[in-house]
Amino acid sequence: MSETLLSSRNLAFELYEVLDAEALTQRERFAEHNRETFDAALGTARSIAEKFFAPHNRKGDENEPEYHDGAATLIPDVKPAVDAFLEAGFLNATRSFEQGGMQLPTLLSQACFAHFQSANVGSSAYPFLTMGAANLIESFGSEEQKQRFLQPMIEGRFFGTMALTEPHAGSSLSDIRTRAEPAGDGSYRIKGNKIFISGGDHPLSENIVHMVLAKLPDAPPGVKGISLFIVPKFLVNDDGSLGKRNDVILAGLFHKMGYRGTTSTALNFGDNGDCVGYLVGKPHQGLAYMFQMMNEARIGVGMGAVMLGYAGYLYSLDYARERPQGRRPDGKDPTSPQVPIIEHADVRRMLLTQKAYVEGAFDLGLYAARLFDDTQTLDTEDERKQAHELLDLLTPIVKSWPSEFCLKANELAIQILGGHGYTREYPVEQYYRDNRLNPIHEGTHGIQSLDLLGRKLAQNQGAGLKQLTRLINQCCERAAAFDSLDDLRQPLETLMKRLSSVTLGLLGDLMQGQVNRALANSALYLKVFGHAVIGWRWLEQAIRAQEGLARGNAADADFYKGKLQAARYFLTWEVPGCHHELALLEARDDTCLAMQDSWF
Amino acid sequence: MSETLLSSRNLAFELYEVLDAEALTQRERFAEHNRETFDAALGTARSIAEKFFAPHNRKGDENEPEYHDGAATLIPDVKPAVDAFLEAGFLNATRSFEQGGMQLPTLLSQACFAHFQSANVGSSAYPFLTMGAANLIESFGSEEQKQRFLQPMIEGRFFGTMALTEPHAGSSLSDIRTRAEPAGDGSYRIKGNKIFISGGDHPLSENIVHMVLAKLPDAPPGVKGISLFIVPKFLVNDDGSLGKRNDVILAGLFHKMGYRGTTSTALNFGDNGDCVGYLVGKPHQGLAYMFQMMNEARIGVGMGAVMLGYAGYLYSLDYARERPQGRRPDGKDPTSPQVPIIEHADVRRMLLTQKAYVEGAFDLGLYAARLFDDTQTLDTEDERKQAHELLDLLTPIVKSWPSEFCLKANELAIQILGGHGYTREYPVEQYYRDNRLNPIHEGTHGIQSLDLLGRKLAQNQGAGLKQLTRLINQCCERAAAFDSLDDLRQPLETLMKRLSSVTLGLLGDLMQGQVNRALANSALYLKVFGHAVIGWRWLEQAIRAQEGLARGNAADADFYKGKLQAARYFLTWEVPGCHHELALLEARDDTCLAMQDSWF
Repeated sequence: MSETLLSSRNLAFELYEVLDAEALTQRERFAEHNRETFDAALGTARSIAEKFFAPHNRKGDENEPEYHDGAATLIPDVKPAVDAFLEAGFLNATRSFEQGGMQLPTLLSQACFAHFQSANVGSSAYPFLTMGAANLIESFGSEEQKQRFLQPMIEGRFFGTMALTEPHAGSSLSDIRTRAEPAGDGSYRIKGNKIFISGGDHPLSENIVHMVLAKLPDAPPGVKGISLFIVPKFLVNDDGSLGKRNDVILAGLFHKMGYRGTTSTALNFGDNGDCVGYLVGKPHQGLAYMFQMMNEARIGVGMGAVMLGYAGYLYSLDYARERPQGRRPDGKDPTSPQVPIIEHADVRRMLLTQKAYVEGAFDLGLYAARLFDDTQTLDTEDERKQAHELLDLLTPIVKSWPSEFCLKANELAIQILGGHGYTREYPVEQYYRDNRLNPIHEGTHGIQSLDLLGRKLAQNQGAGLKQLTRLINQCCERAAAFDSLDDLRQPLETLMKRLSSVTLGLLGDLMQGQVNRALANSALYLKVFGHAVIGWRWLEQAIRAQEGLARGNAADADFYKGKLQAARYFLTWEVPGCHHELALLEARDDTCLAMQDSWF
Repeated sequence: MSETLLSSRNLAFELYEVLDAEALTQRERFAEHNRETFDAALGTARSIAEKFFAPHNRKGDENEPEYHDGAATLIPDVKPAVDAFLEAGFLNATRSFEQGGMQLPTLLSQACFAHFQSANVGSSAYPFLTMGAANLIESFGSEEQKQRFLQPMIEGRFFGTMALTEPHAGSSLSDIRTRAEPAGDGSYRIKGNKIFISGGDHPLSENIVHMVLAKLPDAPPGVKGISLFIVPKFLVNDDGSLGKRNDVILAGLFHKMGYRGTTSTALNFGDNGDCVGYLVGKPHQGLAYMFQMMNEARIGVGMGAVMLGYAGYLYSLDYARERPQGRRPDGKDPTSPQVPIIEHADVRRMLLTQKAYVEGAFDLGLYAARLFDDTQTLDTEDERKQAHELLDLLTPIVKSWPSEFCLKANELAIQILGGHGYTREYPVEQYYRDNRLNPIHEGTHGIQSLDLLGRKLAQNQGAGLKQLTRLINQCCERAAAFDSLDDLRQPLETLMKRLSSVTLGLLGDLMQGQVNRALANSALYLKVFGHAVIGWRWLEQAIRAQEGLARGNAADADFYKGKLQAARYFLTWEVPGCHHELALLEARDDTCLAMQDSWF
């Protein structure tokens, strides 16, 4: 098996042919970088992922974290892996040179991280969670908080979490009950229970910094009364040394279907009345702050889903090439040798579907990462704001589309391996179980669909939507220069026309207060919008592939033909299927909404 | 939680309103039965399933069979459950009174078995496998074989398996390498290796009778050279006592993602050159014989998939009624109490989808069981033959449709439970893992699609297909009597018209030898054909529900309204979506077929 984590040819295609990563080096922030430094970082990521993360992926699944004496234990393989990640500097891949970082574009850091997610999603979660928490303190914390908590996180000595969910408040954060009382010394006393806290305890770092949502005594009801607190596992003295254990208790571990390498914890804050927390930023602004982290996390979840899909795709592709079974329908002579199953049309279908899902979503994830770079490093504030608006709009798709369709890819990978795929002797069933978390955490599919239809579309007078529509139209115009792409372009144009009209109609309903009805079929809308976005990304890839073919590099011709075929699959097998959902949306079909509880 | 295994109201609807089980009691074979004896059997099944099977479903998952000293061990809870099943007579539910059976229609036995599959699919597999093996000996074995092996199976002392798959021959049985040499005394010496043999070893019975496919020395190549052998774990003396251990060795156990309660074994036959087997029926007819068992098994697999879907549906329905979270879009006041999540439109969608999938497939599974009764007990040979033809045609759908869509139902059940659904503290993730086997065993999805399109459609000059088309048309005619069903009937009529034309075209291609191209998109055909069949079954249910409503029993009105809404969901949300697949089939689209190995 040549490559197991991702196709490095495809990664190079994305970075240097589709997303023009080298153009980023023209920006001041990335001026020290060039394709060589990018490739060196990618090479390091790949080799650490292969050497330290992949080898214990199954072991972490089979030996999930255990609760002993109030602490979570992990298999011993996790720490050396995480340490190698830290030592190579990936935790601070995007931080400035002054902060000791690599000052890489997020596009590149995401491409590096992809290797770890593919190799071992469970173990790689710990540093990823830490990055999210650190970025939150960096953006909204005080100088003193940065000194005390952020700096040790950057050094990899403290890890982080985000602590939002409570037993009775998951999707509905406005209902959290965790309280924060002023202690008189500027700090707060926190009291409440959190569940499903990933990385909430582990033996990987000196300290764990929980970013906790809680309500102040004078909090207004709902989401406008949520504040954000730093709650360390151990208090930190003024000199930076660890102080006493804070009143944060590991109440227990959840036992998951997959993603087992990452501890999922129940944490009790303030059971003994002595849990110290520090307010981050202003009171009652916690949810807005947390959304920065959640948006990053959502992109991370999407990429994680992609990479689990990718790992399964590559494994099943190799298997299909090696495994002889049966004969083609027109060659039934039983004395002829069996053919590799990749020769069966239905196996090709399952491979091509995986390729279309995985590489389409991979492109979108990296596109989103590059947009994030734009929000940070484009010249003018106006340009940066525009990038923000587009990224905001795309975030629910970047999160939800891979978590649905790359899970489906994993289902197909199992199917290709048949009985073997169903056993734990092969890796694909674990990818499937691991991936099943992704449509749930960081906002369920249902939440994403409401976020898209009920919030993001209309944000800033639809600025993001207008941009996206313009980009897709421009892509279609460029594609029109290639006759050979007509069959691929037309389904996307047809879909976009109808989707735009449906969108206007639904936004109109929302403005007229027909909220329940307009949002009732948000799941259908999310699917169609997602397919339009991925269809666009595939058409973009098809253009680049045509250009590549035109350059006439014979060694690459197969690669580009594969791209064109996957684009064809997505744009002719998947995109036109959305018209059925559009018809239901147009009709404001109320079949589900009208179903009564007592009728079930 | 009122009911956890299945809805007994729905079961009564199926048996007595849709499938007219009472009419069967007019047939001589079932003349001793009536609704009371049927309901008594169902009540016994339910209570044994609840008392003995359901309680250790999770335990069996967490403590999978282990290999010790050449034998497989099970948790101690399995044997009392299986014993209760045997003692209640379910193993011989359909056998004649003279044989000590209950002489029940298969419709009723399947309805009884459904409770066990829902309660614990892993433990209930052992008796089900035994029934299949016993039926095979009953149909094709010699009198002496029946005396020696079948009788103890009927008594529940010997269990059975079907041993087909080999390491290099799963879907392609023509490539099996297991050999059978005549021993000179009428018996044979078997040599070969089999894998994925369910129930291949366990401590539940005195003996295990393996039904083994192997090739005689003079066997012609391919499927026409396969013979069927009885290979017992222990030889059986003339007086019926157990003789010496046969040379069948448990080489190891497979470790599955789910369905863990059933041992999946690797068996070596004749490692020491001394494995005794007995030829069943005629030489080289083994595959034809085995197909009887496989067809029964395929219906069993389909019903197993349905019942896992059913269990998840009922659990998630109860959860959605109990779990408060968030508010409806038009009632965002954060001080108002949270609503049960069943009030959210998207949760209703996920419940209604599950209901449509699960109850649609449940109906089809029972319809197939009733057809099986028709093949056995209709008056004339011609009628029985007709029933056979229809059942043959439907078998790939009965097997594959639930294994795809009731798995999807399980995915939705997890989604409704959110983070909880992903943990092993709740049952739905296990249903999902258990159900993932069903699209694989007893012929993968791909095999079913080739069986349908490449074999079943054209069988007997399309006699089964003509019958099915007539039945669907008649159903549409009856539905036309209800104006309120117009919206449900029309999508089915439209689909059937186009599907019939696509079918004719594909059969034409096949007859003209365009085999590869005609079969290339068999998976799409399987999906559309399956949706047409389930759409028909839903329209049938909708007619019965309308009739029920017309009878005006107020207590039942909610039940019938739910049926109508689920029928509406399936016929307006699912059925029209198939036109996209039909368009691809019409175009003989070759996107997947044309994809080259080197392009991946």
